[in-house]
Order: sequence, then C-alpha cells, then structure tokens
Amino acid sequence: MHSNRGVAYIRQGVVEVQGIPFPELVDPRGRRIDHGVILKVVTTNICGSDQHMVRGRTTAPEGLILGHEITGEVLEVGRDVETLAPGDIVSVPFNVACGRCRTCKEQHTGVCLTVNPARAGGAYGYVDMGGWVGGQAEYVMVPYADFNLLKFPDRAQALAKIRDLTCLSDILPTGYHGAVSAGVGPGSTVYVAGAGPVGLAAAASARLLGAAVVIVGDVNAARLAHARGVGFHTVDLSLDATLAEQIEQILGVPEVDCAVDAVGFEARGHGHDGSRQEAPATVLNALMEVTRAAGKIGIPGLYVTDDPGASDAAAKRGALSIRLGLGWAKSHSFFTGQTPVMKYNRALMQAILWDRIRIADVVGVEVISLDDAPRGYATFDSGAPKKFVIDPHGRFRKAA
Amino acid sequence: MHSNRGVAYIRQGVVEVQGIPFPELVDPRGRRIDHGVILKVVTTNICGSDQHMVRGRTTAPEGLILGHEITGEVLEVGRDVETLAPGDIVSVPFNVACGRCRTCKEQHTGVCLTVNPARAGGAYGYVDMGGWVGGQAEYVMVPYADFNLLKFPDRAQALAKIRDLTCLSDILPTGYHGAVSAGVGPGSTVYVAGAGPVGLAAAASARLLGAAVVIVGDVNAARLAHARGVGFHTVDLSLDATLAEQIEQILGVPEVDCAVDAVGFEARGHGHDGSRQEAPATVLNALMEVTRAAGKIGIPGLYVTDDPGASDAAAKRGALSIRLGLGWAKSHSFFTGQTPVMKYNRALMQAILWDRIRIADVVGVEVISLDDAPRGYATFDSGAPKKFVIDPHGRFRKAA
Amino acid sequence: MHSNRGVAYIRQGVVEVQGIPFPELVDPRGRRIDHGVILKVVTTNICGSDQHMVRGRTTAPEGLILGHEITGEVLEVGRDVETLAPGDIVSVPFNVACGRCRTCKEQHTGVCLTVNPARAGGAYGYVDMGGWVGGQAEYVMVPYADFNLLKFPDRAQALAKIRDLTCLSDILPTGYHGAVSAGVGPGSTVYVAGAGPVGLAAAASARLLGAAVVIVGDVNAARLAHARGVGFHTVDLSLDATLAEQIEQILGVPEVDCAVDAVGFEARGHGHDGSRQEAPATVLNALMEVTRAAGKIGIPGLYVTDDPGASDAAAKRGALSIRLGLGWAKSHSFFTGQTPVMKYNRALMQAILWDRIRIADVVGVEVISLDDAPRGYATFDSGAPKKFVIDPHGRFRKAA
Amino acid sequence: MHSNRGVAYIRQGVVEVQGIPFPELVDPRGRRIDHGVILKVVTTNICGSDQHMVRGRTTAPEGLILGHEITGEVLEVGRDVETLAPGDIVSVPFNVACGRCRTCKEQHTGVCLTVNPARAGGAYGYVDMGGWVGGQAEYVMVPYADFNLLKFPDRAQALAKIRDLTCLSDILPTGYHGAVSAGVGPGSTVYVAGAGPVGLAAAASARLLGAAVVIVGDVNAARLAHARGVGFHTVDLSLDATLAEQIEQILGVPEVDCAVDAVGFEARGHGHDGSRQEAPATVLNALMEVTRAAGKIGIPGLYVTDDPGASDAAAKRGALSIRLGLGWAKSHSFFTGQTPVMKYNRALMQAILWDRIRIADVVGVEVISLDDAPRGYATFDSGAPKKFVIDPHGRFRKAA
Repeated sequence: MHSNRGVAYIRQGVVEVQGIPFPELVDPRGRRIDHGVILKVVTTNICGSDQHMVRGRTTAPEGLILGHEITGEVLEVGRDVETLAPGDIVSVPFNVACGRCRTCKEQHTGVCLTVNPARAGGAYGYVDMGGWVGGQAEYVMVPYADFNLLKFPDRAQALAKIRDLTCLSDILPTGYHGAVSAGVGPGSTVYVAGAGPVGLAAAASARLLGAAVVIVGDVNAARLAHARGVGFHTVDLSLDATLAEQIEQILGVPEVDCAVDAVGFEARGHGHDGSRQEAPATVLNALMEVTRAAGKIGIPGLYVTDDPGASDAAAKRGALSIRLGLGWAKSHSFFTGQTPVMKYNRALMQAILWDRIRIADVVGVEVISLDDAPRGYATFDSGAPKKFVIDPHGRFRKAA
Repeated sequence: MHSNRGVAYIRQGVVEVQGIPFPELVDPRGRRIDHGVILKVVTTNICGSDQHMVRGRTTAPEGLILGHEITGEVLEVGRDVETLAPGDIVSVPFNVACGRCRTCKEQHTGVCLTVNPARAGGAYGYVDMGGWVGGQAEYVMVPYADFNLLKFPDRAQALAKIRDLTCLSDILPTGYHGAVSAGVGPGSTVYVAGAGPVGLAAAASARLLGAAVVIVGDVNAARLAHARGVGFHTVDLSLDATLAEQIEQILGVPEVDCAVDAVGFEARGHGHDGSRQEAPATVLNALMEVTRAAGKIGIPGLYVTDDPGASDAAAKRGALSIRLGLGWAKSHSFFTGQTPVMKYNRALMQAILWDRIRIADVVGVEVISLDDAPRGYATFDSGAPKKFVIDPHGRFRKAA
Repeated sequence: MHSNRGVAYIRQGVVEVQGIPFPELVDPRGRRIDHGVILKVVTTNICGSDQHMVRGRTTAPEGLILGHEITGEVLEVGRDVETLAPGDIVSVPFNVACGRCRTCKEQHTGVCLTVNPARAGGAYGYVDMGGWVGGQAEYVMVPYADFNLLKFPDRAQALAKIRDLTCLSDILPTGYHGAVSAGVGPGSTVYVAGAGPVGLAAAASARLLGAAVVIVGDVNAARLAHARGVGFHTVDLSLDATLAEQIEQILGVPEVDCAVDAVGFEARGHGHDGSRQEAPATVLNALMEVTRAAGKIGIPGLYVTDDPGASDAAAKRGALSIRLGLGWAKSHSFFTGQTPVMKYNRALMQAILWDRIRIADVVGVEVISLDDAPRGYATFDSGAPKKFVIDPHGRFRKAA
Repeated sequence: MHSNRGVAYIRQGVVEVQGIPFPELVDPRGRRIDHGVILKVVTTNICGSDQHMVRGRTTAPEGLILGHEITGEVLEVGRDVETLAPGDIVSVPFNVACGRCRTCKEQHTGVCLTVNPARAGGAYGYVDMGGWVGGQAEYVMVPYADFNLLKFPDRAQALAKIRDLTCLSDILPTGYHGAVSAGVGPGSTVYVAGAGPVGLAAAASARLLGAAVVIVGDVNAARLAHARGVGFHTVDLSLDATLAEQIEQILGVPEVDCAVDAVGFEARGHGHDGSRQEAPATVLNALMEVTRAAGKIGIPGLYVTDDPGASDAAAKRGALSIRLGLGWAKSHSFFTGQTPVMKYNRALMQAILWDRIRIADVVGVEVISLDDAPRGYATFDSGAPKKFVIDPHGRFRKAA
C-alpha cells in the first residue's frame, strides 16, 4: 500500500505539504468510478490561478489539496478503462470532463455539465470546481480516464521531454486557446497583455501559429527581460508612452491584428505612477484601443463571478467598467472561458515531440521537489519569470 | 433638372422635410467619384438608430439629412460603373464601403477603412460616419456603386415585393447578423432581447435559420402583443418573474442556446417598478445569466463610444458595468459591431423572393409619404410596433 | 427471460425473420462491456444501404442480422452507465462509436477508430462494420451507451412523435449532413440528386436550413410525384431535357448554389433511353456541371471500396471515371463519408419536437410489423416512395 | 513613349522574346478601363502551368504573351484609381478579378464572374482565361487595380526582399491554399505530393502553419535532394517501397493528417519501373490511401476540363479513374481550384517581411534576364529544382 503527500491550502498566503489519503476510484460524491485511473504523478505545475486561492481572493477552504496541472504514470486502471495500461505516461487536461454530456460531445470540455453539481465545468484541486482532489501530490485519481487522458506515444521519449510536455495539462493549451480565439494565423501581428506564464504561452503559441510579430506587455521588468530573451518584442506598461505609441514604434501602426488578455481580473493600472492599484477593466479597455477593426480578442485570463477581495463593490460582484462602445465601434468579438484542453493537447504534443515549440524555455520551467512547493508558490507570487514544476518522486530534478 | 427634398435633423426632438440639393457624383471631401450612381429613392426606412440622433443623444449637427435604409432606382451612372444601368432597382447597404481596402476585401464592410476619415466605417445620413448625405429624400448618391449595390433580378417582381425588400438595406441583415453571430441554427432555442424592429428581425432570422423556439423579451406591451401575433414566444420584462423563470416556463429549462441583444446602450431596467431608468448594462448581464455554457451572444444593438446624454459619468464615456465574470464562467463569446450588410443581403433577398420570410409583416411595415416622416419619427419613438417606410415618390402608399 | 427475433439476411434477394439470441452486454470480440445497455426496440427502419447487401452487392454473410436505424427503450443498463435508466426512450445513432478515440473526440463518430478492427467506422447490422448485431429485432445491445444514445426529454411526447423521431437514427441526419456539407443556408438554391429517402431527407434539411429553392431529381415517376407532393421542385432525369435545362426553367439560371449526391455508386444513366444501365460516375459528373463556381458538393450517397457486383472492372474496385477537371475549373469542394449522426441529432430532435420539420411525411414513413419486414424490403426495392419503419412490439401500427 | 518586349508562345516547345505593344488602359474587349494601372514589371516568374501550354497540352494560340506571376512598379494610374500612385511597388495576384461580382465579394477571386466571358475565372497570359496580356514583359496592364494589387508598405524594403516577395503573385499562395484546404495546423503531419515549386511552397506553408512534420514525395532525385536540403522529409516514389511504407518509416504510422496534391493531371506512375507513363489519377488515389480518416485533401495541382494531349480517350475529356470509394470510406473531403490569391497574400507578405518564411530558398529562386526566358523554360521543364524569376529591367540579377 502506498502512502501519499500533497500541497494543501491552509490560509491566505500559506500552503503546506501534508500527508493525505491515497486516492481511490471514488468520485467526490462517493460513487465508485470504474472509468477512473490512479496515477503516480510524474510532474505537476504551480499555476497562476492557484495563486488566486492562495492570495485569499476566493472562498477556498482550509485543507484543499491544490494542483490541476498534472502529468502522470498510470498505476492502476478501473475495470471499464479500455485504452490505458499501467506504465503509460499521460497528460491530464486540467478540466475534469465526462465525455458524455452535450458540451463534452461538442468539444467544450471546459464546461462539462456533469462533473460539478454547482455549475458547468470541473477541475482538480480548485475551489468551486467540483471537489476533485488536486494533483500537487504523489498520487492522484483521474475519472473518465479513456476520455480525459492523452497518452504519449513513447514512454522514454516522453520522460526525456518532460519539461515541455508537462506544459500540456494547462499552460500551453491555455495560451494557445487565447491565440486561436484571437484569430492568430500566419502573418498576424499580435499583442499579448501579461508576461506571466499564460502570456508567454500565448506568445509562443502565436509564433507556432505563424504570427509575423508577437509583442508582450507587462509592468514587471524581470518578466519583460525574460520575454525578450526568448524572442518576443515587448512593451513596458510602466512607462509614460502609451501602449498604442509603443506598438507603433514596433509595427509602424498603432494597432495589432489580434489581442490576448493573459492577465484577467487582478489587472493593475498602467503608467509610470507607482501605485499599481487594481484596475480590473484596464486590460480589456486597452486591448479594444489597440486591436484593429474587425479584430478578435481572446481572453484566457481569469475573470470571476464574485471577488470578495476586490477593492470596490462592483468588482466584488464581478462587474467591471468596460468601454464596450469602443469595441462595438470596431466590430470586435470577445472569447472567454476556461480552455477546453482536449481540443488542443494532441496537436500541441505533436508540436513538442517534433521540436516545433520550446515551451519550457519560453515559460521558464524550473523543476522543484514536492517539499519545495511552498517556496515555489512564494517565489512565483513575487513575479519571478518562472514556471515551477513539482517533481514529487524526484525523477528529474538533478537532470534538469 | 430634378429638384430634391429630404428629412433634416433640426434639434432634439425635431425633424423637418426640406428642399435640399440634388445629389452629384461628388464625395464628402469634394472629389468627383465616377464609380457612383444617382438613385431615385424607391423606399427609405426610419431606423431606431436615427432616433438616437433625434433624441439628442449624439452630436449630430442641425441640418443633417437623415436616412441610411435606402432602396432605389438607378437614374444616372458614373463613367466607371460597369454592372448597373438606369432603371435597375437596387438595395443599398447602409454601410458605405469602398470594396478596395483590407476590411472590405475580408467582407467586413461595416468597418471600411477609407470612407470615413474619422474612424473605420461609414454610413449615409449619420453623425460621425463620414458625411455621406442621407437617403430619406427623393434622390441620393451612392459611391462605389458596383461594389455596394445589390441589384434585384427582376424590376416588376422587386416593386411587387417592395415592402419586404426594403428591409434588406439594414433591418433584416442586422437582425440576421445578430442571430448568426449568436450561433443560431436548426434546433436552437433563442432569446432575443428587444421587440423593436431589430429584435423582430433577429427573431424572424432565427426562424429562417431553423431555430426550434424563438423567444422575444421587452417591457412594451404593444410590441410584445405584436411579436406574439407574428408567431414568437414572448417574455414580459415588466413582470416580477425573472427572465430565467419565464424562459423556464416556455422551455422547461432556464437557459437558451443563443442570445441576441437587440437593445443596445439605451437599455432600461427590468422588473415591475415603473421607473424604467436607463441601465445600460442590464441587457448584457441578463443575457449572460440565461445563455447556456459555451453559448454565443450576438450584439447588433448599438453601443457607443461616447454618450453625452447618459445618466452617469461612466456611461457618458461609454463604460458599462458588465458582469464579465459571469460570462467567463460559462465560456461565452460576444460579437459586436455594425452589420456588414453585403455579407448577407443577397441570400436574404433570395429568401424573400422565394417566400421563405415575411419580414414586412414581422416588423410591422407601414408605408408613409415623405411629408409624413416627422409623424413617423414621433410615432416610432413612442414605442409603436411599426417600421415606417417612406415612399418619397408616392408609388406604393395606396397599394400598401 | 426474454426471447428475441430479428431480420436476417439469407442470400441475394432474401431476408427472413428468425429467432435470435437475446442480447448480452458483450462486444463482438467477446468482451464484457459495462458501458452498454440492452434496448427494447421501439422502432427500427429499413435503409437503402441495407438494400446494397440484400441485392448481393456486398460480401454480407448468411445469417447477418440487419438493422442500423434504431429507436429504443432502455431495458437494462451496464454498471458503468451513468446518465440512462430503464424506461428512457432513446435514439441510437447508426454509427457505433467509442467516445474515447481521436476521431470521436473530434465529432467524427462515423470513423471511430476502435469499434471495428478492420477499418475506421462501425455500425449495427452491416457487413464489414465491426460485427455489431443489427437492430431490426425485438431487442438489441448498444455499447458506450452514455456517449452514443440521445435521450428524449419526455417519454410520452417521444412516443407520440415516434414516426418523426425514428428518422433521427440515420436518414434525417444523413440527409442533413449532405445539405450542411453542401453549404446550404438561408437563400440557397439547392439540387438534390435522388428522390429516395436520403434525397428527401436532404431536401427537407435544406428547407429547414433556410434554402430558397430545393429541387429534387430522379428517374422514378412515383418518387418524383411524392417529392412534389411534399413541396419540392423536381426534375425528371428520364426526359430529353438536360438537368441544366430543367434547372434553368425553375431558377432562370442553369446552376444551383449547392448540390447533394443522395444516390451513390448504384447510379444509373440519365436520359430517355430506357436502358438505365449503371453509370456510377453519372451523378457526380452531372453535379459538377450544375453547381456554381466555388460551390460545394455533399456526397452522403454511399460509394464503396469494392463492388463485386459492378458491371465493369474499374467499378468492381471502386474506381469511377470522374470529370475532376470540370469541378477543378469551378473550384468545387467535395465532402464524403458516413454521417457522424451525433453531431446533428440533438438539434434535429429539437426541430422535430418543436414542429419545425415533418420528416415522416416527407420521406413517406409507413409503419409495419416485424413479420412484414420481408415485404417492406421488397416494396422498397421496387422504388416505392416509402420509408418502412418496423414496429417490433406492435405499439404503433394501429395508430399510424 | 516606352517600347515593350515580352515572352511569346510560338508552338509546342518554343517560346520567344518579341517586341510587343506597350500596354494601354483597355481591356481585352476593347473597353477603356479607368480602374487600371500600367506597371513597369519588377519581376515575373515562370510557372509550371505555363509549361502546360508550352508542352502543347492546350489550345494556346501562337503569339500568346505568357506570364501571370507579376510584381511591378506603378507607372501610370487610371483616373478612377484611388489608393495607388506612381512608384508604388505592388504584387499582382495571378487571378484577374473585378471585385464587384458575387464570387469576388465572397473572396473567391479565382472564379470571378466577369473578367472572362468564356467561364468563371481570369488570369494574365493564359489560354482560355479571358485574353489578358501576360506579364513576362517589360510592362503590363492590370485592371481593377485598387482591388487587385497588394501594395508593399515600404519601397526599399520591398526591393531588398524581392526574391521572396516575387513568390506572392502565385506560387506561395497556391502552395498555402493547398495546405490550408488540407486542414494543416499546429502539430499536423503532412504529405505533399510533388517536389516542384508548388509542392515546395505547400511544404513551406505547412511549416509556417505549425505542422509537426512535412513529407514531400516525388520521383525526381534532384528535386528530392533539394527538398531535403531545405528541411523537409522526403519519400522517393521511384523506389519499390510503397508510399504508405515510406511514410510509416518516418512517422511510425502509415498515415498522415493532411495531404496536398501539388502535381495535377500530368501525374506519372510511381514505382521503380522506368516507364513513368502518365497516370493522371495516381496521385489522388495514393493520397486517399495515406490520409487519415476524416482527413482533408487539398488539390492545388491543376486538373483540366479537356486535355487534347492525353494518352487515352477518357483523359482527353478530363475524366480520371478515381477510387472515390476509398476516400468515402474514410470520410475524406477534397478541395480543388485556382487559388484565390487575394485571400492569402497580405498575410504571407507579412510573414516574409518579418522573416517567418524563406520561400525563395525553399523553391530555389534563380533570377534571370528577359532574354534568358527561353532557357529558363527549357531548364525548368527538364525538372531542375529551380524557380526562374525574370528580371526584365536588369535590376537584381547581379545582386542575386
């Protein structure tokens, strides 16, 4: 019998590694699920949306086991699993999805109708997403395994490329979804708001999609330097020059074809005044200014229905002061929501396996131990240009 | 030499029929345009967006000749016109478009880059849309005529079906654009906010597109009665029952597949309290509540960049308090902007000519004389379930 | 314990109703399948593609139980089934699909990669389609039931509309797929080759999709008369006038926007000479002639890889003499293959339940008993304008 | 007054440089066209489809001035031209298109309805394509110039990158159209039949679109060596190993996601027997074998309606023996026709200007003088891995 350990949310600002139960083939409602598998976790990443919980911006309860970016090795399969066997190395989409409801059948696995009694859409280790135990742990259970899991074609190759493949569970498809829904294609000029991992993944995706120029904007100097280091143009939103002016310096015109909001509701004000107060509609309003007429705006950045930690009453109930007329005048369209990872992960796996994208370098993957997870959370929260990947069984740290 | 008369905006609440210059093949910048034609106006409709000007919600100057919904007979063709001849009956898309810029080539004629020096997109008879003289007149000039005009295949048939065909210049394509961008198709359940002409046209379009059920909502009892009379389900937003509750009574579930905002920035509050204050984000916030996960929201209703007549400072600069997190949680997408009429008008003409849609009855076409235009404006503004069609040469009134 | 009876293929031209085993939750390879259900068959239709087998055009073995158009009542559910319960009335897509492979996840359930070891794509009761027992029987087993089955929302309503809903398992989605892949939309002019049930379903679908005009062509006078009776234009391919000439008489131009091949490889020559020899490329070559430049051609009609009963050597190996250059000159595109029923059946169910399409009348549904199935096969093969629906438990015949 | 010289087709196998009239703003029907411009030709390429004429496979008349791949400098503009001025450097799409008909408005400029009285679609310097004088000359006239021409944003930059930009008039968009219509995207595995310039351009486009692996097949050893040299995998169709076997050696599976036919009707048999007889359906039949279920096949390679030089009667009337059943069983779709260059050229220009694609190196651009054109034709016809670019005014040869 295996023991298990995982990263638990304790209270605002505090996470801890704890002993936790070894997973069973049972769902959050206590039903036996023969379609599930138990995974030995190969890697599991810390995500910016985990930070929303850890910063106390949600109603996450004490003791919630975190982690929705999971790559694993199949340890045990339920009786109804047909396509997987122990030893397979698999990527777990962060969306829990049943594969049997209307939205799943339509490839909208981000809003599965059955895995979360509270609302459409489930995820591992996340408040209000159905109660599925998180995977920042040694072992984790995945339901509807034949449907959910992406099996890598070759075990040795998968382990050799694990720093890149670990990005398939969320960060790369999420950036890619932003770029695709923004209409990025060959020759596009693209602006990505936010130089964190989602923004960098959107930028890398835009490049893979053939974009002519990709510009990333942020106020964080270290992140901007990292973005330039991996080949993107940048705009520094802490400067006096407006976003449009900085774009014009690069492109010769003050507009881009496509825009991606990789920031979300915790956006802060732009400009050189040091206050950086939260200004949750800032990013969207800026994107409408710099996106061309008939352009599309992809919004993978998270916006929430309720934000108890917001600075004003409207934002607390998720209402933002959006200059919709600006977008309307330019015939913009807007695409929101959790990324349906399954729609993209197979193609992106191929791009990684055939060396068409170096996502680990782009997002700054750093492999750490499970015990180092609290440090990873703290460092990431400070704005370091890093994507922390937990290696709970100590397979990769030395090599990495 | 012909004389000419047209409907002029005078000041808030006042329009007048005036003698105006006979049109010439000259653009608003004074350049000769050999690609234009002079039309004898066959019919020209009063539009809800004309009302925005007449209500004093814009900076429209005194003397502006109104009218962007025009059907005409070709009277004179410029030297560069190749496909049109005097006597042809044509529908004029309300968007002025050059057919030569990037957005026109991509079928985004609502945001043509060249016909309006101030911003993308031009229209006839509208403030800030390029200075093109309006068509609520006896005669009007249309530039880039080969590109812009839709010629009806048979003159006699066109004149016989003029009450329906007159809707091709704006109202029907605009409703249709809302329905199409909301993803309406066979079997869809659809909610249309607003039972004015755009809402009714969206509803009729949804039916043409194969929708299973079309529900129209409003607070205006006369408009709701009219909507029921032409075959739609309705919800009465002046009642205590919520929108979701009323939808559930019809469908058995409190959600629809597709939603259309046919109201725009002049939305008023819902519910039974009689105040009906403006509440410009009400419609969008309600649509996010009742649209299914992964659904689309078409927004043909006009939102403006600046609204000097708004009731609060944020709305004055076009900023609305939108519960974006609600839509984000449901993976909604949003489609805004002026309808690119040319993308749809040929297909809709065919649907009319082959009796697949009776748009005149649905929107309540009433044919009036040019001299009656001021009365038409006033009656329409009072919320009558009518679409006023001006017949400036007295061809159809008796028959209609 | 229930007994069971089904329609067996015996040899060319002969089918028989036989006692057959009661279904078990076991797949053709002998594996227990806990994701399956046993259905009591409510209705099951005779299909034109069944005729290919019965005419001896395939290698179907003696004793094969026919039937892939099935509507049923859930009798018993496997342990892994989550969304269905005994008593539910369900439509069975004719494609057997696993819901877990790449093509199923992409909604291409017509070419599921796992349910047929021989090739992509499975079906019930069909040669070379995976060995799944057919449903022209009293009881049948359906695997991957949560994924495959479409549950009707209301049992009583479903039974009341059974003549229409029975068309959801194949014929209506197949016709619809033809129309959709041909690009049919509001205002389209459409030509459908073949006035059998698939052709009529394509025509009805085109009408639902908003087509302006739908024209059906055939050489069978009774079928053409039926097609006119249900509201379509027709062309009689036994006349001297060419297809293009007959289309021009209806439309004023000799071309249509969209074309559907609802005939397939058993096409016969056109024209007034009585021979009607097989001419398998006739339909496609004719469609390229009459489809407009940039048009699309949907090909739901079946073309086979091998046709041992063909009249010449090339056709025996499935090679047809196609005038591809004709299509190439007009930039045509061509869409083939088994219809992925699941992509469409929910929307079409809604269209039926809300009375937007009367498919039973259009295809000429006639309800017969299981014992009458041999007569149904013979009558249908003679070209009668009928769609025979077997009612194996005698629930509907009297009412119908 | 300028003189003019151009490349004339004389008879099978013979082209000559001749003195020809200086172009005027007059169309082939003798009408003055004020929307046209006169270009000083900057570069003009020899195309594989020119070879069809020169090989005598068409009814091209003696004296036809060849050349449809043109990049030019605006010398004189018609009175109705608004967006161009003398000195502008422009790319000319090989399709002549009016921008005013239904198909042009829908972006199907390859089948413009007005520029060729004989059929849909026009081109410069090509038999049966409307009589527009070819551009392998010093000067050429382009009608509907505002609509047709793509203006480069910077004259100096354009001239500096001319070897790549010259590929925008046909070869690059044509290969790209093949890749796009085959469904190529990030992560795709792609097979391109034919290692001539169109095949190489399709391969380069697939790479730009994010393909994981691109495989090019041919029987010509020099072309295959060149393809490997510019980074593609290759299969040698002169070997005994089948195409599927060679693909499996590269990918591990015998199928690709996407396939492009860059050969067309002059295809020759595969395999090691040296005969290489024409076998016009060989390519398409092979592509159906190796394309995955639900895959798409892009067909930019030219198929003709009539081929007087074909080896058998069926092929003479453009009929090919296609194994359609094979594609049907796999739910393939097929996309044919002249590439609508305008749909793609702006985006591809951006990709070139921002160094995302090195198309000149990929297709083997070699710049030659106008007088060298006959040698270019002969060398290209021998199968050399070259794309000959004529520099009629001697601007680039030394530098190149």
